Amino acid sequence: MTALPDPPHARALDRDTVLCVSLAARPSNIGTRFHNYLYNALGLNYVYKAFAPADIAAAVAGIRGLPIRGAAVSMPYKETVIDLVDVLEPSAAAIDSVNTIVNDDGVLHAYNTDYQAVADLLAGSGFDRAGPVAVAGSGGMAKAVVAALRDTGFTDVTVVARNLPAGRALADRYGFAHVAELPGGARPHLLVNATPIGMAGADADRLPFPEAVVAAASAGFDVVAQPAQTPLISLLEAAGKPVISGDAVIAGQAAAQFALYTGVTPSPELVRRAAEYSRR
Amino acid sequence: MTALPDPPHARALDRDTVLCVSLAARPSNIGTRFHNYLYNALGLNYVYKAFAPADIAAAVAGIRGLPIRGAAVSMPYKETVIDLVDVLEPSAAAIDSVNTIVNDDGVLHAYNTDYQAVADLLAGSGFDRAGPVAVAGSGGMAKAVVAALRDTGFTDVTVVARNLPAGRALADRYGFAHVAELPGGARPHLLVNATPIGMAGADADRLPFPEAVVAAASAGFDVVAQPAQTPLISLLEAAGKPVISGDAVIAGQAAAQFALYTGVTPSPELVRRAAEYSRR
Repeated sequence: MTALPDPPHARALDRDTVLCVSLAARPSNIGTRFHNYLYNALGLNYVYKAFAPADIAAAVAGIRGLPIRGAAVSMPYKETVIDLVDVLEPSAAAIDSVNTIVNDDGVLHAYNTDYQAVADLLAGSGFDRAGPVAVAGSGGMAKAVVAALRDTGFTDVTVVARNLPAGRALADRYGFAHVAELPGGARPHLLVNATPIGMAGADADRLPFPEAVVAAASAGFDVVAQPAQTPLISLLEAAGKPVISGDAVIAGQAAAQFALYTGVTPSPELVRRAAEYSRR
Repeated sequence: MTALPDPPHARALDRDTVLCVSLAARPSNIGTRFHNYLYNALGLNYVYKAFAPADIAAAVAGIRGLPIRGAAVSMPYKETVIDLVDVLEPSAAAIDSVNTIVNDDGVLHAYNTDYQAVADLLAGSGFDRAGPVAVAGSGGMAKAVVAALRDTGFTDVTVVARNLPAGRALADRYGFAHVAELPGGARPHLLVNATPIGMAGADADRLPFPEAVVAAASAGFDVVAQPAQTPLISLLEAAGKPVISGDAVIAGQAAAQFALYTGVTPSPELVRRAAEYSRR
């Protein structure tokens, strides 16, 4: 890892300072550090503050009434807020899930930049769109991945999920197949992990697919970001296969959120620095 | 004016940073600069941001729902917010006017630190409580002054106001007399200005009472703070009379607000520095 510059000096607030917030049951420091780092680096008169709302409807009323410019929405509010906003943008409508609210003069627009980031990464990936794809998982991130696969032209997708009702509902919604586990001879070209397997903790050393399946695959995509170097990513990279890892999703979704709030698209290098700073 | 130290370095926000706000139709920079200066000087993990609310009820809902720790309330919301809070504290109930909301775990308490500051200054003034007092004005600040005069034991008070309905209502409410202007021979001991006369602008050079009345008075109190050195204050000081000027009211009310939000009472010297910084 390269040396990082010190975070830029925080500017003094004035009456014109624009506030953006996050709404989560258990906020981390990552969003606060990421956005404030970029505001300061780019000389934008913005400030970002994380909240654990006492009342999500009142919190969204406050975004409208104070007003607050933008809000990142995390668990468990990503679906609840749909009824509290004015305009559901295509990225949120695609997966019935909101992770970003933008307040344009009192009109609340809802987006999902996770979906957007995944779709952008898939669109730019060069992965074979006609080849078979297996997606492990049936939760919120699996929904973003499956919708984005469909919307970027992947045609042969199988959802692999032991949770049968959730897996079937997800596959049905986007017109794909569902299995509880891959049949013995299945050899998907692209493997996508949208489960917590490989994340730091109890599942850190596990693979989301059998080793023989990983060995036969030609590309991979893992949404796990902490660490980005999961067993799946390591194994595929060691075999020289192209991969997309979770840190690219996190950085892409945060940069998209940043651009929605400020109208400014930070450079990839600045996003990398802000992301590294935010995880320290 | 003495040299001021540079404002202390603004700290980086994290998820635990506490937010306080102001709600006003036309926010100034003064509150934002005053409070953030003190937060930084005292090492408190707080940040302060001014808002011009799009919807006052939604803004107060946001204070409760996000949550926000405290809110300064300015024109034209000082009376509107009474119906939006949970507990009207005695300082706000005394004058049916709120300038401070404190959110204690979702319960919104409303205070009026203007009233509190005026009452504290009068209580510590040594002014003769039995002598005749004339108060010029019938607006919000006059109400705070007249209520505080009554509550600190002044007994012979006359409200001087050309606005007859407002002047009479104010005097009646607190059991005092009202006149449109002072009779020729009246010589109040204490003169209180609660009008904008003497404020920078068109009224900068005017006195709120006839010069002979000022010459005969033994003490004065002027709520005008910009500048604090009004013609009334200058004339009384030049004659060696004790005075209280508007900057003491501003500093007192802001320090009281600060203590309500943080539980920390800043030293008078620190309040003086923050007040000077906030007006630069």
